[in-house]
Amino acid sequence: MFDVDKQMEVIKRGAVDLVNEEELRGKLERSIKEKRPLRVKLGLDPTAPDLHLGHTVVLQKLKQFQELGHVAIFLIGDFTGMIGDPTGRIETRPALTREELLVNAETYKKQVFKILDPDTTEVRFNSEWFEAMNAADMIRLCAQYTMARMMEREDFRNRYQNNLPISIHEFLYPLVQGYDSVALKADIELGGHDQIFNLFVGRVIQRAYGQESQVLVTVPLLEGTDGINKMSKSYGNYVGIDEPPDVMFGKLMSISDDLMLKYYELLSDISLEQLNSLKEGIKNGTTHPRNAKVAFAKEIITRFHSKEAADTAHQNFEKMFQRKEIPDDVEVVHISRPTAPISVPHFLRDIGLVSSSTEGKRMIEQGAVTVTVLGDSKKISSESLSIGNETDVIFKVGKRKFKKVVFGD
Amino acid sequence: MFDVDKQMEVIKRGAVDLVNEEELRGKLERSIKEKRPLRVKLGLDPTAPDLHLGHTVVLQKLKQFQELGHVAIFLIGDFTGMIGDPTGRIETRPALTREELLVNAETYKKQVFKILDPDTTEVRFNSEWFEAMNAADMIRLCAQYTMARMMEREDFRNRYQNNLPISIHEFLYPLVQGYDSVALKADIELGGHDQIFNLFVGRVIQRAYGQESQVLVTVPLLEGTDGINKMSKSYGNYVGIDEPPDVMFGKLMSISDDLMLKYYELLSDISLEQLNSLKEGIKNGTTHPRNAKVAFAKEIITRFHSKEAADTAHQNFEKMFQRKEIPDDVEVVHISRPTAPISVPHFLRDIGLVSSSTEGKRMIEQGAVTVTVLGDSKKISSESLSIGNETDVIFKVGKRKFKKVVFGD
Repeated sequence: MFDVDKQMEVIKRGAVDLVNEEELRGKLERSIKEKRPLRVKLGLDPTAPDLHLGHTVVLQKLKQFQELGHVAIFLIGDFTGMIGDPTGRIETRPALTREELLVNAETYKKQVFKILDPDTTEVRFNSEWFEAMNAADMIRLCAQYTMARMMEREDFRNRYQNNLPISIHEFLYPLVQGYDSVALKADIELGGHDQIFNLFVGRVIQRAYGQESQVLVTVPLLEGTDGINKMSKSYGNYVGIDEPPDVMFGKLMSISDDLMLKYYELLSDISLEQLNSLKEGIKNGTTHPRNAKVAFAKEIITRFHSKEAADTAHQNFEKMFQRKEIPDDVEVVHISRPTAPISVPHFLRDIGLVSSSTEGKRMIEQGAVTVTVLGDSKKISSESLSIGNETDVIFKVGKRKFKKVVFGD
Repeated sequence: MFDVDKQMEVIKRGAVDLVNEEELRGKLERSIKEKRPLRVKLGLDPTAPDLHLGHTVVLQKLKQFQELGHVAIFLIGDFTGMIGDPTGRIETRPALTREELLVNAETYKKQVFKILDPDTTEVRFNSEWFEAMNAADMIRLCAQYTMARMMEREDFRNRYQNNLPISIHEFLYPLVQGYDSVALKADIELGGHDQIFNLFVGRVIQRAYGQESQVLVTVPLLEGTDGINKMSKSYGNYVGIDEPPDVMFGKLMSISDDLMLKYYELLSDISLEQLNSLKEGIKNGTTHPRNAKVAFAKEIITRFHSKEAADTAHQNFEKMFQRKEIPDDVEVVHISRPTAPISVPHFLRDIGLVSSSTEGKRMIEQGAVTVTVLGDSKKISSESLSIGNETDVIFKVGKRKFKKVVFGD
């Protein structure tokens, strides 16, 4: 086992909150002394089965704990998942059936074991203890927390102040999550920074049930490829870990240089020293950002597919750019995602690729307008164009005029 | 069965809230048409097994429903009782064990059947349905109500505004009580006026579970014999329905004339016409308030003991007053109940029975000071006197000076 200082250094890398350092030191020291690995909990809600890079930040942190010799507990919230839509009436169908949950859980496991070591991972379901709990147990659990403390959670407070409804059972979710830590005897709980309140509840509930409080470690929320919003499927700014290598490569090459450095920090396996020397190299011009991006994209694709897949994706990407003559430094325009089909002549004028909509119309008629999405180009023949979930669309007019449009929400 | 108008008149007598009249008419009409008695619910918490006249106001109302041909449901909240002290930690012993609850429930039944007709009373325990409910059912129940509505309850709102703690499980009690109405398919729920919020929750919960909302009828809180506070054992201003006839008689004779009229309205079985003629008689001087008080005391003692017991209590009371020469119109002084033994000489001076504490001392030495509690007189031989739970204590100095002291809290 590594010594406490070394472990602290690894744990703190890229973490936002650590509650608190002294307790963590104490737990690590005891763990070394008693040769007992710490139990590190991460809970995920199995309602959406596809993981993207945003989820993997915290999974990487969990993996680091495994590498330090501790036990990863991957908790699937099937009990809460089965309760279903909070706001509905009693007749509301549960959001997910038992069968759907089990299917999602299998997908999850398949995906998380691309990162976690299955041998030191405990996969658990919280229905295990909540199905054994009755109404009186639930009431006793609720007796352990006050409304005032619950209202410290920002979204509750805001909703209350703005007269937006909060169902009483929404107060139960943090308590349920907190009780999971009791059932699992968690020493540490990980989560995204936005989970900090719920993780805190776990500390209180553990004490109420006679356990030592868990230490909390949170990681930043990963920005999506647009560099603006949190990575999320609904924003269309995500890189799914099951996406094809070519798609991953295209998406990762589209990010800004600043965002690339953040991604390196949160997602890459390179050491702190390597990261610092990379930053230095970009700063003094000895490392070209594009090359760093290529290296990063290949590291990620290698992790979720293979080394070969990464190389092939790289070659395809280069060929596509050569073939389509799209320059590396294409100018980027950020635009809100349109909800209705756009008028291409007007749009080209607005982004400065043509000087008037009349010119835009003429260029379309001449077949001189193309759009490229993830390396796939096609000529525009109609004046109307629907934008779906695409994030990066390269518009080309004639032979030499390009703009990359990033659609945000 | 009585017609709707007649039933409405009886139901509205002495009620504070009726939510709402139109729905009640509808239910009564349907009940007559379908020859189906309405199910009228009254819930009591079995933590304190002794009933006093304060409890009987709502029991009288329930009895009236029985007389109108409906079903009385007497609900004993044993489930909630077993959950125990709200504010404690998880280790807190339940307030009451199953055995204690059953003993209390038996006492309750014995006492309520002095008022209710056992043949049309359904005695139920809410553990019946809550022990069958699991944690998920409880969460679903909680999904049916919002925090904003919960905060309409005055004590919750005040505590929140004054930063006093509210445990989350306290929100569950109104929901549990509301769900009782679902399980019992209650058409009407009765309660004291202070229960109006909880009864309202039942209306919402019934609708959420696909039932028609219950109608609410509340009755006033009965003032204690001091005419100030709500009748309560802890205020010492109560008349217990299991107390000996002489004690009941003494307590009921001690109340003010105004309070007597209130007690008539809320507790007596006399008709509205009789009540109005009694009020008129007192106003125009043809009825002496003391005689009305005697008649009321005898009605109550007859209800909870027997006609004979009432007559005997009356005779004992008269004899006591004749023997001790205590006038009917003895002057009454209200004093806070002292927490330490009082100095009798100073006390007699303060209430104006002697002109100085020195005189008070002398009168004690001469054996000229007596106290009478519920007809039981004794000479005061010490300067120090402890006041226990007594409410009315008559102090007498010499042969002709009396004051009745009412100790309040």
